[in-house]
Amino acid sequence: MRMVDIITKKRDGGVMSPEEIRFFIEGYVGGTIPDYQASALAMAIYFRDMNDAEIAELTRAMVDSGDTVDLSAIAGKKVDKHSTGGVGDTTTLVLAPLVASLGVKVAKMSGRGLGFTGGTIDKLESIPGFSVEMSGKQFIDHVNHDHIAVIGQTGDLVPADKKLYALRDVSGSVESIPLIASSIMSKKIAAGADAIVLEVTCGDGAFMKNERDAIRLAKTMVQIGKHVGRETSAVITDMAQPLGYAIGNALEVKEAIETLKGNGPSDLKELVYELGSRMVLFAGKAEHLPDARKQLEQALVQGKAYEKFKQFIANQGGDPQIIDNPERLPKAQHQFEFRASSSGVVAQLKADQIGLAAMLLGAGRATKEDSINHATGIVLHKKIGDKVKEGESLLTIHADTEDIDQVLEKLEQSISITERAEQLKLIRRIIS
Amino acid sequence: MRMVDIITKKRDGGVMSPEEIRFFIEGYVGGTIPDYQASALAMAIYFRDMNDAEIAELTRAMVDSGDTVDLSAIAGKKVDKHSTGGVGDTTTLVLAPLVASLGVKVAKMSGRGLGFTGGTIDKLESIPGFSVEMSGKQFIDHVNHDHIAVIGQTGDLVPADKKLYALRDVSGSVESIPLIASSIMSKKIAAGADAIVLEVTCGDGAFMKNERDAIRLAKTMVQIGKHVGRETSAVITDMAQPLGYAIGNALEVKEAIETLKGNGPSDLKELVYELGSRMVLFAGKAEHLPDARKQLEQALVQGKAYEKFKQFIANQGGDPQIIDNPERLPKAQHQFEFRASSSGVVAQLKADQIGLAAMLLGAGRATKEDSINHATGIVLHKKIGDKVKEGESLLTIHADTEDIDQVLEKLEQSISITERAEQLKLIRRIIS
Repeated sequence: MRMVDIITKKRDGGVMSPEEIRFFIEGYVGGTIPDYQASALAMAIYFRDMNDAEIAELTRAMVDSGDTVDLSAIAGKKVDKHSTGGVGDTTTLVLAPLVASLGVKVAKMSGRGLGFTGGTIDKLESIPGFSVEMSGKQFIDHVNHDHIAVIGQTGDLVPADKKLYALRDVSGSVESIPLIASSIMSKKIAAGADAIVLEVTCGDGAFMKNERDAIRLAKTMVQIGKHVGRETSAVITDMAQPLGYAIGNALEVKEAIETLKGNGPSDLKELVYELGSRMVLFAGKAEHLPDARKQLEQALVQGKAYEKFKQFIANQGGDPQIIDNPERLPKAQHQFEFRASSSGVVAQLKADQIGLAAMLLGAGRATKEDSINHATGIVLHKKIGDKVKEGESLLTIHADTEDIDQVLEKLEQSISITERAEQLKLIRRIIS
Repeated sequence: MRMVDIITKKRDGGVMSPEEIRFFIEGYVGGTIPDYQASALAMAIYFRDMNDAEIAELTRAMVDSGDTVDLSAIAGKKVDKHSTGGVGDTTTLVLAPLVASLGVKVAKMSGRGLGFTGGTIDKLESIPGFSVEMSGKQFIDHVNHDHIAVIGQTGDLVPADKKLYALRDVSGSVESIPLIASSIMSKKIAAGADAIVLEVTCGDGAFMKNERDAIRLAKTMVQIGKHVGRETSAVITDMAQPLGYAIGNALEVKEAIETLKGNGPSDLKELVYELGSRMVLFAGKAEHLPDARKQLEQALVQGKAYEKFKQFIANQGGDPQIIDNPERLPKAQHQFEFRASSSGVVAQLKADQIGLAAMLLGAGRATKEDSINHATGIVLHKKIGDKVKEGESLLTIHADTEDIDQVLEKLEQSISITERAEQLKLIRRIIS
């Protein structure tokens, strides 16, 4: 088998055989297939696409390229949730304790943020003492005992994805649905998920800029799930504006605590229910979706989810008193109001630009090596479709510096007020 | 400027600016742009094509990537001829002395053969003593004095093409019209051509398998010529069967000598006139094409071309007596007749397979490091459309071994006889 023949076959619209897909992935990770052949194949795949069987085999081959997490010591179905990335995305902080409070086993491997997208671990680490460092045994013990634990990336999971993604990033083939789908799904499968609930974001603040591509990506991932025997559902969400109101680590933890108390932004709550009810169903803890949703609503109202969150934080070294007293979370030195320059209706709140503004405040990383300021960020007071009066505060900037010119410039570019604008529907579609 | 942005632009159907094209070529040759970005861009170009201005700029940037041959010491317009490669292609051996005999300056840089395609230098070297080794001054002196000289590749011409072609060859983007066209034209321009006459072959024995692609390639090269100020014409030829009758180095020299005597295969002669009349016209030695053709026919009939060939061979160390006595050329030890297994009309004489059969006999190289046997090869007695009787010889195999099983197998696969078949038209179209 020669790699150049495989590239030519795909270039000419052919279907790669399972053997050819494995030859590529194994050879590329093993170093016998050079970068220049892998980048050419990735570009050919960008243009020619792959069919469902090819994508499923690619996903399997990527999973097999490295370690996999063995969660068999945890009884029951392990359901994982993944988001393709958003701005102000507090979902996991609410969702994980909520479904765990219903007995769903949440054995979550999570990551850190980069660019305008925040990471769940960064957010949790704004709680003093909280840590994701633990042994595999501790992790499994927590999940078995309390149904929830979050750990950092461990082991050499899917090295094929690490190598291929880094290559695609510098050779112009990131935006390929089969390559994105296999990248995401291989990581979830290697991390031990039996079933997967996906949030596929679209719009300015997401990787998929339009809904059509998001639907294609979601359908592709659901198909991979079918092929590899992992129940998978996807919720398409509109990330034209940030999710909820808070953007920034401690600020989002505060918002999550409010939500776990039964308050919190309605869009965030609705998303938590949509994703959570599918997780509860996949885990076999409900008969059907309406039943799952009802259980979730009750767990929130009765404070079970809130108590579960406190237990989870305590288990991982965090101070549970802080959950009851969120004013003790890290706080930025300065607050600035960003005021409406005219009266009208908010028409634009560009999620990616607002995410970048928060990053400039120190809430996110421009490069992997940057450190995070847990206190800083932005809290919106208005969302798209909301009325506003001239001079009224649109958002509060939480900064540890008084020099926020760059942040103001970004915000000015990302917000517009017009005479009329519709509220946005966060949940666009369900793919299952 | 970032290479990944240039790749993405081309991938999305954009037009590369002259600056972007130069950034790519200079960076790639200079080593700041890695192979994996160049192969991804080549694949994107394969899918998205380039417009005429992009291809012309790419050609210019490739020329500028290395040395160029300075032929300004030769008075008059230097017209070069190039073929995209055929089997049994004796054209240059006849054409070069023929046009030189009319005063056209033939300052030719030529190459060696690989695979089923022979190289002009290999063929000429079957004449004992003949050499293409000479100084630049000797080369120019010969052309100024006798209007003809052939030299091997000198200097570091178009290093961008060497590097890019080698990469495309292993990463699946050889078959890209803009990349092929700029590769050919950059080499001709760097070698000092003021005007270029192209033979673009198509069919089994050619790089372009079908006429449509050959026409696209020819048109692209003629357009490059227009953009870079080099008059260019192209003749599309059918390489479904070998050109003329002889395939093999000394065998083709013999056929060339016969043709220079006014005999020789009619298809070869017709092609020589078509190409030659355009060279004569470009060089300003005729008023119009019919005039040029008439001069060529006369030069052949009157023996001027034959004498020019002898002079050319003598100038470069070859024994001119051999031209008068071609039986003194290297001769293979064994001759085998390959006979028709049935009566009928020759319907197929696959040029690439017959070329490979000659290569197996030692007449060509499988790899660049192989040496050549000048004596061996194949001489056809029939061409497509010719009648043949069962047992009649279709061709003679000239071998230096009696073990020709593999050769016979190749020939059996490449020849078929049916009840009815049309003769092929060698010259399919002129593009100018």
